[in-house]
Amino acid sequence: MPGRNFLHIPGPTIVPQRIRNAMAIEQEDMRAADFPEFTLPLFNDLKKIFKTETGRIFIFPSSGTGAWEAAISNTLSPGDKVLMSHFGQFSMLWVDMCRRHGLDVNAIEMDWGEGVPVDRYAEILKADTNREIKAVFATHNETATGVKSDIPGVRKALDEADHPAMLYVDAVSSLGSLDFRMDEWGVDLAVSGSQKGFMLPTGLGIIGVSEKALAARESATLPRTYFSFDDMIAANDNGYFPYTPNTIYLRGLRESVNMLMEEGLDNVFARHTRMAVAVRKAVAAWGLSLVARDEKWYSDTVSAVRVPEGFDGNEVARHSYKYYNVALSISLGKIAGQAFRIGHLGDLNEVMVMTPLNAAEMSMKDLGIDIEPGSGVAAAQEYLRSTRQARF
Amino acid sequence: MPGRNFLHIPGPTIVPQRIRNAMAIEQEDMRAADFPEFTLPLFNDLKKIFKTETGRIFIFPSSGTGAWEAAISNTLSPGDKVLMSHFGQFSMLWVDMCRRHGLDVNAIEMDWGEGVPVDRYAEILKADTNREIKAVFATHNETATGVKSDIPGVRKALDEADHPAMLYVDAVSSLGSLDFRMDEWGVDLAVSGSQKGFMLPTGLGIIGVSEKALAARESATLPRTYFSFDDMIAANDNGYFPYTPNTIYLRGLRESVNMLMEEGLDNVFARHTRMAVAVRKAVAAWGLSLVARDEKWYSDTVSAVRVPEGFDGNEVARHSYKYYNVALSISLGKIAGQAFRIGHLGDLNEVMVMTPLNAAEMSMKDLGIDIEPGSGVAAAQEYLRSTRQARF
Amino acid sequence: MPGRNFLHIPGPTIVPQRIRNAMAIEQEDMRAADFPEFTLPLFNDLKKIFKTETGRIFIFPSSGTGAWEAAISNTLSPGDKVLMSHFGQFSMLWVDMCRRHGLDVNAIEMDWGEGVPVDRYAEILKADTNREIKAVFATHNETATGVKSDIPGVRKALDEADHPAMLYVDAVSSLGSLDFRMDEWGVDLAVSGSQKGFMLPTGLGIIGVSEKALAARESATLPRTYFSFDDMIAANDNGYFPYTPNTIYLRGLRESVNMLMEEGLDNVFARHTRMAVAVRKAVAAWGLSLVARDEKWYSDTVSAVRVPEGFDGNEVARHSYKYYNVALSISLGKIAGQAFRIGHLGDLNEVMVMTPLNAAEMSMKDLGIDIEPGSGVAAAQEYLRSTRQARF
Amino acid sequence: MPGRNFLHIPGPTIVPQRIRNAMAIEQEDMRAADFPEFTLPLFNDLKKIFKTETGRIFIFPSSGTGAWEAAISNTLSPGDKVLMSHFGQFSMLWVDMCRRHGLDVNAIEMDWGEGVPVDRYAEILKADTNREIKAVFATHNETATGVKSDIPGVRKALDEADHPAMLYVDAVSSLGSLDFRMDEWGVDLAVSGSQKGFMLPTGLGIIGVSEKALAARESATLPRTYFSFDDMIAANDNGYFPYTPNTIYLRGLRESVNMLMEEGLDNVFARHTRMAVAVRKAVAAWGLSLVARDEKWYSDTVSAVRVPEGFDGNEVARHSYKYYNVALSISLGKIAGQAFRIGHLGDLNEVMVMTPLNAAEMSMKDLGIDIEPGSGVAAAQEYLRSTRQARF
Repeated sequence: MPGRNFLHIPGPTIVPQRIRNAMAIEQEDMRAADFPEFTLPLFNDLKKIFKTETGRIFIFPSSGTGAWEAAISNTLSPGDKVLMSHFGQFSMLWVDMCRRHGLDVNAIEMDWGEGVPVDRYAEILKADTNREIKAVFATHNETATGVKSDIPGVRKALDEADHPAMLYVDAVSSLGSLDFRMDEWGVDLAVSGSQKGFMLPTGLGIIGVSEKALAARESATLPRTYFSFDDMIAANDNGYFPYTPNTIYLRGLRESVNMLMEEGLDNVFARHTRMAVAVRKAVAAWGLSLVARDEKWYSDTVSAVRVPEGFDGNEVARHSYKYYNVALSISLGKIAGQAFRIGHLGDLNEVMVMTPLNAAEMSMKDLGIDIEPGSGVAAAQEYLRSTRQARF
Repeated sequence: MPGRNFLHIPGPTIVPQRIRNAMAIEQEDMRAADFPEFTLPLFNDLKKIFKTETGRIFIFPSSGTGAWEAAISNTLSPGDKVLMSHFGQFSMLWVDMCRRHGLDVNAIEMDWGEGVPVDRYAEILKADTNREIKAVFATHNETATGVKSDIPGVRKALDEADHPAMLYVDAVSSLGSLDFRMDEWGVDLAVSGSQKGFMLPTGLGIIGVSEKALAARESATLPRTYFSFDDMIAANDNGYFPYTPNTIYLRGLRESVNMLMEEGLDNVFARHTRMAVAVRKAVAAWGLSLVARDEKWYSDTVSAVRVPEGFDGNEVARHSYKYYNVALSISLGKIAGQAFRIGHLGDLNEVMVMTPLNAAEMSMKDLGIDIEPGSGVAAAQEYLRSTRQARF
Repeated sequence: MPGRNFLHIPGPTIVPQRIRNAMAIEQEDMRAADFPEFTLPLFNDLKKIFKTETGRIFIFPSSGTGAWEAAISNTLSPGDKVLMSHFGQFSMLWVDMCRRHGLDVNAIEMDWGEGVPVDRYAEILKADTNREIKAVFATHNETATGVKSDIPGVRKALDEADHPAMLYVDAVSSLGSLDFRMDEWGVDLAVSGSQKGFMLPTGLGIIGVSEKALAARESATLPRTYFSFDDMIAANDNGYFPYTPNTIYLRGLRESVNMLMEEGLDNVFARHTRMAVAVRKAVAAWGLSLVARDEKWYSDTVSAVRVPEGFDGNEVARHSYKYYNVALSISLGKIAGQAFRIGHLGDLNEVMVMTPLNAAEMSMKDLGIDIEPGSGVAAAQEYLRSTRQARF
Repeated sequence: MPGRNFLHIPGPTIVPQRIRNAMAIEQEDMRAADFPEFTLPLFNDLKKIFKTETGRIFIFPSSGTGAWEAAISNTLSPGDKVLMSHFGQFSMLWVDMCRRHGLDVNAIEMDWGEGVPVDRYAEILKADTNREIKAVFATHNETATGVKSDIPGVRKALDEADHPAMLYVDAVSSLGSLDFRMDEWGVDLAVSGSQKGFMLPTGLGIIGVSEKALAARESATLPRTYFSFDDMIAANDNGYFPYTPNTIYLRGLRESVNMLMEEGLDNVFARHTRMAVAVRKAVAAWGLSLVARDEKWYSDTVSAVRVPEGFDGNEVARHSYKYYNVALSISLGKIAGQAFRIGHLGDLNEVMVMTPLNAAEMSMKDLGIDIEPGSGVAAAQEYLRSTRQARF
């Protein structure tokens, strides 16, 4: 069947040609004498993406899920009390992982469409006068619902309670796309992956770890080998890895970091906002709403679009893929079927963001949803036109 | 600047990943013992694309312009009378080339927007009772205006005049996209290139030559070496080439022919028609018209869209490229500025054809052309939806 | 610096162009409706590479080290008694990992240059009349020393003791290169990775798991999430994955399996033996010996070449890389400096295997090791010539 | 059949990964507004490779044969007297091309193994007191015999005769590999191609043209359209092309020029000499000789190795390809069968140049030629070792 498939899910994203070519190289010796000349500056520049000066970066050959596990297993012990909240598939899975690692999880259940309950966190932390809570978890951007949470708010809650708990943030679908400030926000474990803002294929778990979190591994008793910070540190300090790294991904990551730095992080964030606004203009023109309940929750990397009662959002995604070769995302878990999702992160421009809008529009019409043909696209066009910039 | 550029000019087309990968190989020895096992079936299968059984295929490392020259220089002599017509940049350039080779050209000038004047050809051929006309030229698809000509009609004119002149057809932007039947239409020289229906980059001139045309090289006195049929035949017969061929293109061409044959030529043609209709629906919705003056001239590979008086079509193309990263084509020569062109040939699907429509729509609005935002896209959507087919 | 680097370490191997191109594709939706049509046959065909009919294959986005961890954490519990042996860097690291997971490890230390002590295993298993040993571990091919162990012998030891312990085999640098028969040898957990016999880059841990081992996860209490068999099974059964898989690697793996099956596993094994013999002929001609102490230990995927007393084998590897752009491997751990290693696995032919021989020869001479220039290459040539086969 | 093919013919050469990746891009609009920002500096930097400041560079989508034709057809007229010499397949074909274009060719036949007869040229030019000779042709590096000619000597012959004839040089297999100085040597037409020193695939004819040669096109009456300098100049002056250029090749050429300039042309030449000497050391160790009759004729880009009487050099090349996957070149024309050829130009390092030596050695032994196994390789090793340089 002719023509290209268009991937507009919230990760993996479209991999830019520049990164594809950076990865289109022969395998190399990961123990070569000149390998550290490549790796050490890469680790250093990654810190700029995380906006940390005092933290340390770890790169695991894994998905983001592996990076979650690395964050937990290196710093916590069975029985440790942790404060979490869940409001979507991925925040829920992190809770589940903590429980499976024997942590004593206080998980606040929120409606899907809302984010981290900063006020509840504040109360609980204040009430924890014995400082039993070892860690506070927050999902910066819940990919399942298109909800962005207030990480500075969580930090404020910790600070106001003068609470020493570490702050764990899932930044998988935010880092490199949404404003993220590890040091300023006092994030102790910032978990990310290669296939979102870094615009690489899936395959790297990337973690920023504060000095405090590094110190915590002394007391942490969960078993870890593959995801061991200690083993990594011992090898990374010399520019090497404790087991065979995925060198083509590291070369791709180098190019990704170059691209983000060349564009400038602030420009990257502004670009993501612009694309997200265009999508939201389209959704409004369709007369539909987002799963995110309030503007303050709106994510600039993914939008979960509610379909009207009586329709199946997942059918929209499946139809778009089957008839128009555009991959939208289904909705999962508690809201399965109530919405479809559009990823709008990574290396996108105006006409690229129009593609999932076109596909969604056509698919919704095909399935009988009452929207005005072309309305969403027209609304997005108007906004993008009014904010246009010459490329040269 | 982020995001991918979208190329929607009438060639080169977007090269499918399958062909890109077929070309992403190491160089090979063009004199290897097993090279003919690759080349001989390729020549053979190319005949199926040209729909010739008795003709012979030549592949030159050149653009389509080189293939034009090969057709002329191998079969004609200075002073030879030829009948041509021109109605666009490319038919005009072929006339020019014939003149520069010393041919005695009778070139009928048509309005740009019309095609080969079959009736005039018929008259002239009938009147040529001394059979002085050696060759009749026809541009099957004029890329500059989006006009398709009636090649069977030209054949009929020749037959009804019982005229022995050879028929030269420029099929550069039609072969592999529009119905083309070399044997059935009695085409003697069918000239094509790699960067249109074959979906390869520019770099190969591909020619189908009838037995009659092959015989004509005996008497043809124009100098030729690079484009010599004789040299090619001597080497090709054994599966080799008289000078270093471009092997990665040949491997890509193999994949291209595979793709065309797997899809089936009739399906390929129908797909092109469907995409073209979608574009024409959009143009109509904008309240604009094509350069092609009548439905019978409409090309299914390229549409030249007239902009209203007082506007510059080339500015639309330039604006689209500069602001929205979509390459549309400018209009050339006699109609320069009156139109912009959209290529819709090659490996396209629904959302891909929407991209130049989106870009054109946004650009026209930006430049003050009074069209309804989203109207073209909506009209194309409706047509494409109503003719949709599941991919699996 | 011009010219290509040649990678002749025991993995990652040189990735064939066919596999590189299979991976040079756009990202795809790992939740697409037609994704299982791709994944389910892949899982099935992988079973043929492991030679198992009753077992199940798991693919983790990790290195081989991750696959080791998956094998352990899904099937064992802290305190479980396991029988292991170590005789090289990698067998040692597996012991270390088991200890870090709280297993009660009986690890037999062997001289580096020998392999699994089948007789000692037999004695210990016979003596374990209470059946306290839950698992027996064996490293099929110790990459650090170029030593191949006798897995059927380990099975025989288990069978003769009528011992129910499960058999864990590290097949990372053997599967797809050396004869391996999961079902016939009664292997319960066969651990492999993408970057050796599969000829892919590093990035996938691939495990074959017997029904017995699958059942063992019921009682296993080690925490696991990323490496959970349960989560994998739940998703894999439908052709999906519990978290974002690395789709370009899966596509590459598909091509790898195709290549192995097209060539035929027996031919693949014979080819590896032939290349290994050529290397060993060269080593003998140099007057040097292997770290592997006896012919029965010789690995057909990697040779660790002892340098004479007073010389540093690692300096040979470093020199080769620095001056001749050929990556040989250093020796690690207990034999660090006593040898250098040549990987000869994967997609190699005669002249490719000569490259590390040339580089080693030149480097040894440069460093003052007394060998006859050209002697190793000449000996390899003679052997390869005498066993030559036409390619077509 | 496993393993990579190694191409060691005198062009096309192995294309470096850097250039392959520069070409692994999407098609682009050759009429884009920002295209000249790319092309104009490229034309300019190409002048540095030709070492011309006053000349002009033309890039044709063709092979080197097309570039030959462009040089002739733009500057000469039927009946023009030209002085040529031939001593190999390619110099012979250029003579043939001139004759086919109606030139009045005085072609001096030399033994194959010698080059341009500078003394005879000097005599003839002195004798041509009427200045009837319009052009003097010289093949800088005859690829068929591995013979390099003395271009400064030809210039001296012209100067000493104070002769105004233009100097045409075939630099196809020398430019970018051997010292070439267009301005200093007074070359009027320097013809090259993409697939030799530029390390690209076949597909571009590249020509340096002096001001004098440009002026000559005024009077030149040979027909030309595809290869017209006039058309090129009109478009190139603005950074465009008169017909669709092969943009991926232009992007590759940009990278090639970058690589040559980064390394420094003098270093490039020295490297070619070093590789060539290594090959010649091997040939001497085999007890064989080159087709080039004298050291002064030795080419540093290709060596034609004579096999002993009674053996077929072409069988050596065929055998090497068939059994060892290494493409050597056959010998052509007058010396067909007397030799095989090794290309040693482009992006090569020490072990790469050893590969054809290994393959030749094995093949010659297989075919019964009495050489010492390993002798050639050993001799090359010794020389390369003695001239080694650290890469970092």
